Amino acid sequence: MAKITAHDLAKKQKEISVAEFFERNKHILGFGNQTRALITSVKEGVDNGLDACEEANILPDIYVEIKNHEDSECRLIIEDNGPGVVKKQIPHIFGRLLYGSRFHAIRQSRGQQGIGISAVVLYGQLTTGKHAKITSKVESDRPAVVANLVIDTNKNRAEVTGKDTVHWEKPTGTRIEVSIVADFKRGKKYVYEYLQSTSIVNPHAQITYKEPDGTVHLFERTSEVLPRKAIEIKPHPHGVELGTLIKLAKHTKARQLNSFLKSEFSSMGDRTTNAVIDKAGIEKTINPKTMTREEFLAIHKAFKKVKIMSPSTECLSPIGETLIKRSLKNETHEISPEFIITASRPPSVYSGNPFQIEVGLVYGGNLPKEEPVKIMRFANRVPLLYQQGGCVTTSAISSIDWRRYGLTQPSGKGVPTGPAIFLIHVSSTLIPFTSESKEAIADVEEIENDIKLAFRECARKVQHHIHKKVRRAKTREKFDLITRILPEIAKKSANMLDKPVPILDPIITKIMDIVWIEDIIEYEKVSREPVQTTLIGNNPEGQKSGGTITKSRIMVVNYKRDPQKFNLYAIIPKDAVVGTINPKPSKITSNFIKWNLDAIPPANKIDVIFELAGLEQGDFDENDLYIENINPTFVIGADKWEGE
Amino acid sequence: MAKITAHDLAKKQKEISVAEFFERNKHILGFGNQTRALITSVKEGVDNGLDACEEANILPDIYVEIKNHEDSECRLIIEDNGPGVVKKQIPHIFGRLLYGSRFHAIRQSRGQQGIGISAVVLYGQLTTGKHAKITSKVESDRPAVVANLVIDTNKNRAEVTGKDTVHWEKPTGTRIEVSIVADFKRGKKYVYEYLQSTSIVNPHAQITYKEPDGTVHLFERTSEVLPRKAIEIKPHPHGVELGTLIKLAKHTKARQLNSFLKSEFSSMGDRTTNAVIDKAGIEKTINPKTMTREEFLAIHKAFKKVKIMSPSTECLSPIGETLIKRSLKNETHEISPEFIITASRPPSVYSGNPFQIEVGLVYGGNLPKEEPVKIMRFANRVPLLYQQGGCVTTSAISSIDWRRYGLTQPSGKGVPTGPAIFLIHVSSTLIPFTSESKEAIADVEEIENDIKLAFRECARKVQHHIHKKVRRAKTREKFDLITRILPEIAKKSANMLDKPVPILDPIITKIMDIVWIEDIIEYEKVSREPVQTTLIGNNPEGQKSGGTITKSRIMVVNYKRDPQKFNLYAIIPKDAVVGTINPKPSKITSNFIKWNLDAIPPANKIDVIFELAGLEQGDFDENDLYIENINPTFVIGADKWEGE
Repeated sequence: MAKITAHDLAKKQKEISVAEFFERNKHILGFGNQTRALITSVKEGVDNGLDACEEANILPDIYVEIKNHEDSECRLIIEDNGPGVVKKQIPHIFGRLLYGSRFHAIRQSRGQQGIGISAVVLYGQLTTGKHAKITSKVESDRPAVVANLVIDTNKNRAEVTGKDTVHWEKPTGTRIEVSIVADFKRGKKYVYEYLQSTSIVNPHAQITYKEPDGTVHLFERTSEVLPRKAIEIKPHPHGVELGTLIKLAKHTKARQLNSFLKSEFSSMGDRTTNAVIDKAGIEKTINPKTMTREEFLAIHKAFKKVKIMSPSTECLSPIGETLIKRSLKNETHEISPEFIITASRPPSVYSGNPFQIEVGLVYGGNLPKEEPVKIMRFANRVPLLYQQGGCVTTSAISSIDWRRYGLTQPSGKGVPTGPAIFLIHVSSTLIPFTSESKEAIADVEEIENDIKLAFRECARKVQHHIHKKVRRAKTREKFDLITRILPEIAKKSANMLDKPVPILDPIITKIMDIVWIEDIIEYEKVSREPVQTTLIGNNPEGQKSGGTITKSRIMVVNYKRDPQKFNLYAIIPKDAVVGTINPKPSKITSNFIKWNLDAIPPANKIDVIFELAGLEQGDFDENDLYIENINPTFVIGADKWEGE
Repeated sequence: MAKITAHDLAKKQKEISVAEFFERNKHILGFGNQTRALITSVKEGVDNGLDACEEANILPDIYVEIKNHEDSECRLIIEDNGPGVVKKQIPHIFGRLLYGSRFHAIRQSRGQQGIGISAVVLYGQLTTGKHAKITSKVESDRPAVVANLVIDTNKNRAEVTGKDTVHWEKPTGTRIEVSIVADFKRGKKYVYEYLQSTSIVNPHAQITYKEPDGTVHLFERTSEVLPRKAIEIKPHPHGVELGTLIKLAKHTKARQLNSFLKSEFSSMGDRTTNAVIDKAGIEKTINPKTMTREEFLAIHKAFKKVKIMSPSTECLSPIGETLIKRSLKNETHEISPEFIITASRPPSVYSGNPFQIEVGLVYGGNLPKEEPVKIMRFANRVPLLYQQGGCVTTSAISSIDWRRYGLTQPSGKGVPTGPAIFLIHVSSTLIPFTSESKEAIADVEEIENDIKLAFRECARKVQHHIHKKVRRAKTREKFDLITRILPEIAKKSANMLDKPVPILDPIITKIMDIVWIEDIIEYEKVSREPVQTTLIGNNPEGQKSGGTITKSRIMVVNYKRDPQKFNLYAIIPKDAVVGTINPKPSKITSNFIKWNLDAIPPANKIDVIFELAGLEQGDFDENDLYIENINPTFVIGADKWEGE
């Protein structure tokens, strides 16, 4: 065999352009087959539109149209009302992989790679040989620009051919038209599912979707307010790699170590900065550009030894428990599940990247009992449809022993089987996707742990809920027995003895010996004028106020022998604004209302009423009630107040 | 809120360097946590070394050493005896992402992305701030070059600092030394597992592994011959995208359409090329550079309408069923499983890329019954350790209903539970990995289907095996009964009647009424001198001949009343060379030996013997026997010959 040397091999060693790389590995970008290519294309286009609108503080209005030609060629049109893209950036944004504005910014956004939308254009060119057509309008009093893009994959650069201007009625916006080889027949239901799920977790967006046969689906806007904008932050010292620290120091404008740390990192106030520098044993006025690797290493170690505040969560924009509950309700409205429980974790950090976990759990009803539970995954408000098996959300769920919660799971591992739906939303400044197709989240330990904790909280709530229900049902049974049979006995005995029927209330209370608390929730549609609200409670999502009033009526009945005087607490649901309250509360915070109830005489009842705005019908369907200054074992329907 | 325009956004839009991209998304490359970072680093280094050696036709001798410092910093050393890397290519090969020789070549190799080894160097620099040290020797009579690399991630370029030359005793080779932040304690067992599995499917490689505490593991070479070299081929017309066709035409040196198609694609002979051009209705002398999109589209469609030969499989280098069986034996030698079955599919094509599936299945013995089956995955001879859940191999297995094969599987879906190990090897010129970390294979339909077909074949073999075993056991029971009880009755009756004991053979044959075929396999260690072999059979892996002789003795007993004359066939196992055969066969091919047996009188026996070289003890433990010219229902131990 001929000898092959390093010199022979060197002749073949050459650069690979990133476009060329993905052209050959298009499955990594989510274009692995014609069905998935369709969904990925729609997803990248819509995500891009939503991000653009939100960045410019515009309520998104997205138009999606698919035309299906013969030979499985589809023409995809995606239009947004965002700020548009300036002319000279069009070939870069839409025709060059690894180019964009969101990659370098540390804040939650859908796109974070600078690959998505140009990958669609590349895929279109690769499979159909046709050029993508981009229309962009950046100022309301100027015409729109139309550009056809040709990508040179060897160079990862696009050229514009046939530039033109047209009149476009929109004030500003972007329109992408691209031909792709795709399988609409098989992809149809996934495209719909993706748009529907997107609409549920993005209630501020309006999405119009026209299918090839002319059918138009309108996913209406249900909130007129944009979600809280995620604010860009500096990197957090926790999790910053030593190499990144050195690199930042090389490029900083700061001349001294202390100002470098304060200006380039988040959560580094004067005190923390000094503590870090002290711990590292370095002069704080040293010029960071002259520092040695060992000095940086000392700083890097000090980061871990000094207590540093968690990064600001302004960079995140979670969905919120109300919206999660609503989306699960929507998903299950024909199933009438037994209960829907949500939980959210406080924001946390992995490798310096803030993240937050929100989960929801639906159980029972007509959900299939013999199938693996349905898992709904979201990342930065984007539904994830593929690669469930390779996602950290699945491995977190699989590692919990669900058998004690009534689900089937061989050997306590794996995705459980049973009548349940699990929802998970991960929001982060950098979702650690397993690949550029952004379909699955990598198994980062911190994220996995937080998902487990969130589901454990859900599970505890489920157990608590079941416990309360069982206790109440038992007491009610006893109560029914007493109130039905005792009067009959009394009546018969009185008749036989020809005496008047005795008053039984004291006897009933004597037998019952409890305080019974029960609540009824009613919804009332009101006109658009806002109701008078006590401005307490949190409403970050800016739900439509005024649409629905949620009325809570809590009945407290004393079935004990003595008058009862105690304090009652009601938890205010998230995203709600409190209106009328009766009787007057003794305290009200953003989380709860507290009443110092008047003494209730035996066999007497008190009604406590409060109203909530900012929720939709069904968002809130059961009070979380607590009591204080009374033995909780004698109370049905409320638990012991453990403090805030 | 201040209005944000396209002009504001344009200021932030900029290029993202590929190094910078992966620096932020290092989990995509397999560096998601400190355990995985260790394994990925070892894997990329070893894969690189093996590829380099094989490219230069050198038997690989790989040295891996891990030194573990405090603070979870590891120093990793990987050395090969490959051809080395020429000086000016060192910063590119080891310090630049997307650079290499294997990306553009269509043939099976471990590295195919031009990312792996430079990613290790990048990760080391990022986490430890230290430079990688590369030693390379390209000519045996010159000193080796030593280079320290500094990567500028903003530019994706490396610089060499402190270049030097040293004496190195190896004729040629490469040595990589890199410091990484990694968790040796947790990664230890996976590194070992990876190296062991690698050694099993690469018997031509010798791997020496030194752990931080000084323990040295030697994975010895068990084959002195390199696997068949995978030959580079041209792209195949099936699955070539229209865009790629247009691009190839733009860069071809051919001046005419017919020579373009013949020179740039594989499987395009004169006849096929003309058929394609005819079908497309285009002039065959047209200059491809002047063709329109519509003309290319016509050619592209014609590719699908004309029958084109499958691509040459020279570009692939499968493991081979013998080696798969051996690796499964190795994995289970303390478990004594009931059987090991293998199957391999003929090479196939997805999107123009040739691929081939090989599978193996171990069942029973002491394998755990309550756990999900163990799945061993390999791609191009590289073991895959992570992301099993997101791999097409897993989804293919999950979609088969295994309940009928004695495994537990709720609702017939998902990874089954039971005492089994499944092995899958996918070889391809382009493994469609789900990400650059090369841990899981994307769900390409063609690959998924072929895996299913291979496992179905396994399952059929399992059923056939069980069926044969059951039939043989039943007959043997009957036989035992007759040969034990009949003589006793005869003896007692003869004694009672005072007559001689009758000869029972004709009676036994009358009751049995079958031909019994049974085989015994024996192994014999021989000296290194090769045995005299009939040069038939296939031995692509070049297993050590001469080490072991596998002796098959087939006993054919006629328990029928008449003499029986028929033909016997024995299948020659793959990778074996046939030696002595007795009696003389009537025919011998690369697949089988055929004997026209002499008539066997009733109650008589014939022994058929043949020897095999090129196998190791245990590789072959049961004959596959077939019969012809006899009613197969009267034969136990062989099936009807259905032709080749």
